[in-house]
Amino acid sequence: MNCILLPAANFSPTHALIDAPRQIEHISKVLGAQVGETLKIGQLGGNLGTAVIDEMTPAKIQLCDVRLTIEPPPKLDVTVVLALPRPKVLRRLVMDMTAIGVRDIVLINSYRTQKSYWQSPLLARLDEFVLEGLQQGVDTLVPRITLQKRFKPFVEDELASLMTNCAIVAHPYSELSLGQYLQQHAQPTVYTLNSAASISNQEHKQLHMKSALPSVVCIGAEGGWIDYEIELLAAQGCQAVNMGRRVLRTEAAVNALLGQWLL
Amino acid sequence: MNCILLPAANFSPTHALIDAPRQIEHISKVLGAQVGETLKIGQLGGNLGTAVIDEMTPAKIQLCDVRLTIEPPPKLDVTVVLALPRPKVLRRLVMDMTAIGVRDIVLINSYRTQKSYWQSPLLARLDEFVLEGLQQGVDTLVPRITLQKRFKPFVEDELASLMTNCAIVAHPYSELSLGQYLQQHAQPTVYTLNSAASISNQEHKQLHMKSALPSVVCIGAEGGWIDYEIELLAAQGCQAVNMGRRVLRTEAAVNALLGQWLL
Repeated sequence: MNCILLPAANFSPTHALIDAPRQIEHISKVLGAQVGETLKIGQLGGNLGTAVIDEMTPAKIQLCDVRLTIEPPPKLDVTVVLALPRPKVLRRLVMDMTAIGVRDIVLINSYRTQKSYWQSPLLARLDEFVLEGLQQGVDTLVPRITLQKRFKPFVEDELASLMTNCAIVAHPYSELSLGQYLQQHAQPTVYTLNSAASISNQEHKQLHMKSALPSVVCIGAEGGWIDYEIELLAAQGCQAVNMGRRVLRTEAAVNALLGQWLL
Repeated sequence: MNCILLPAANFSPTHALIDAPRQIEHISKVLGAQVGETLKIGQLGGNLGTAVIDEMTPAKIQLCDVRLTIEPPPKLDVTVVLALPRPKVLRRLVMDMTAIGVRDIVLINSYRTQKSYWQSPLLARLDEFVLEGLQQGVDTLVPRITLQKRFKPFVEDELASLMTNCAIVAHPYSELSLGQYLQQHAQPTVYTLNSAASISNQEHKQLHMKSALPSVVCIGAEGGWIDYEIELLAAQGCQAVNMGRRVLRTEAAVNALLGQWLL
C-alpha cells in the first residue's frame, strides 16, 4: 500500500475515518505509524493527498488535517482484453493492470480458458483486487471491468467499437515483433525535460518519437490464443505481435507490454 | 512449460529420457500427449529442438528421433541487482528474470529486506525456479545467481566491475524518468524486417534507434531503496530513473523495465 484509499463516505469536511481492518493492520503493523504522523491518502474517485493520524484504536483510525490537493495520474487510455486466467493469477493480474493504469479491462473466454475459471469465487472479489492495485499504484480511479463469456460475439460485434485507433494481440508466433510494430507506429512526442535530465547532445533531438498506445491490447492466458482466435481478432483489424522468441507468463507479458507506455 | 529441458546425462546418441515427476505430469496431464507425438525439448546448456514420445510409463518417458538443432535465444546482457524479496515472491521473480533472459542476477541485502528472508528454505531451491523460468521462456542457458548479504561492500567494491556501460536504479522518486533516460541513451539499431513487417512510410526510417541495454539494473523490493542506498549507488555511477508516477510491485517493475529491451 503506497497510499490508503477511502470511500467518499469516510470523509467529513475536516476529518477522515479509516475502518477497514486491512488498512488498519497495514498502518499499525507494516508502517508502524503513530498518532501525529502523516499518511498518504486518497479519496476513491477523487484526489490524492495527506492526512495526520488524530486517534488510533484497533477498530478505527481517525485522521485530521486532511489535504486532498493532488490529482490522480492519467489513466493509460487502453482496453486490455484478457483471456480469463487461472483464479490463482487473476488477483495479481487485476492488481497489476490497475496499478499500471489500464482504463478498461475485458475478461473474456478463450479456447484455453477452463470452464471452471468462470465459477471461481475470486470473480466476486474484483473490487477488492482493484483497490489493492490502486493503493499500490497510487491512483484513485477504478478501471472498468467487464466479463465476456462468449469470445466470438464479443470480437465480431463489440471489439470494433473499442478500437479508436490501432489494436494489437500478443502472440508469440506472429511474424511481426513488438519492436517492429512500435517503430511503425512511432509519432512525435514532446518531453518536458527538467534540469536533472537536460539533453546535452543535439543528436538526440531526432529521438523525440514515441509509439502511440494502441486502443486495444489483447493478451491470452496460459497457452495463449489458438489460431482461430487470432484469425477472428485479425479480421477485426487486430495486429498480432510477438515479444521476442521468449514466451512470458501472462502477468509478465502484461507488464512487459504495457510498460512500453508507462507515463 | 513451453519446452521440456533435460540435463545432458539424459541424452544418448539417439534417445532421451524424461524422469522428473513434474515434467512427466505436465506431459501426461496438461499436454495430454501420447506415444508418437512430438514434444518441444531442449538440453540444459545446449540446443533446443524436438523429440518423439517412444514409450510412456508413470515413472519415465522415453523419447526417440531427438533433433536439437535450434540455438537458444540470446541472453539479455545485463546484471539485475535485486533487493532480496519476500520468499513468497522470490520464486516468481527468479522465474520471470530467467524467462526474460537476464544473464546475471545478484540478490542483495537492503535496508527494507527483512533478515528472516535470508533464512528462507526457498533460497536453496533457486535451481528449480531457474528451470521453471527456462522452460517458460524456451531457453537452455541458466543465469548466474549470486547472493550478496552486505549491500555497502558489494556496491563499493564490486559493482563498478559489472558496469561495462551505463547502470540504472529504479526509484519512483527520482527526477529523471525512464522515458527520458531511454531518449538520452538511444543509438542506431538495425532491424531485420520481414515481408509482413515492411515499412511503407519513408518517414519511419529515422526511427531506427533503440536505447542501449544498461549493463546493470538495480531494483528494490517492497518499499524500494532508502535514500542512503540510492546515494551509494549513485556514487558508483548508477542513474536513478522513475517509471512514471505509478509505483509497481517488484515483479511488475522487473518485467515493465526489462520489457523495454525484449529481443
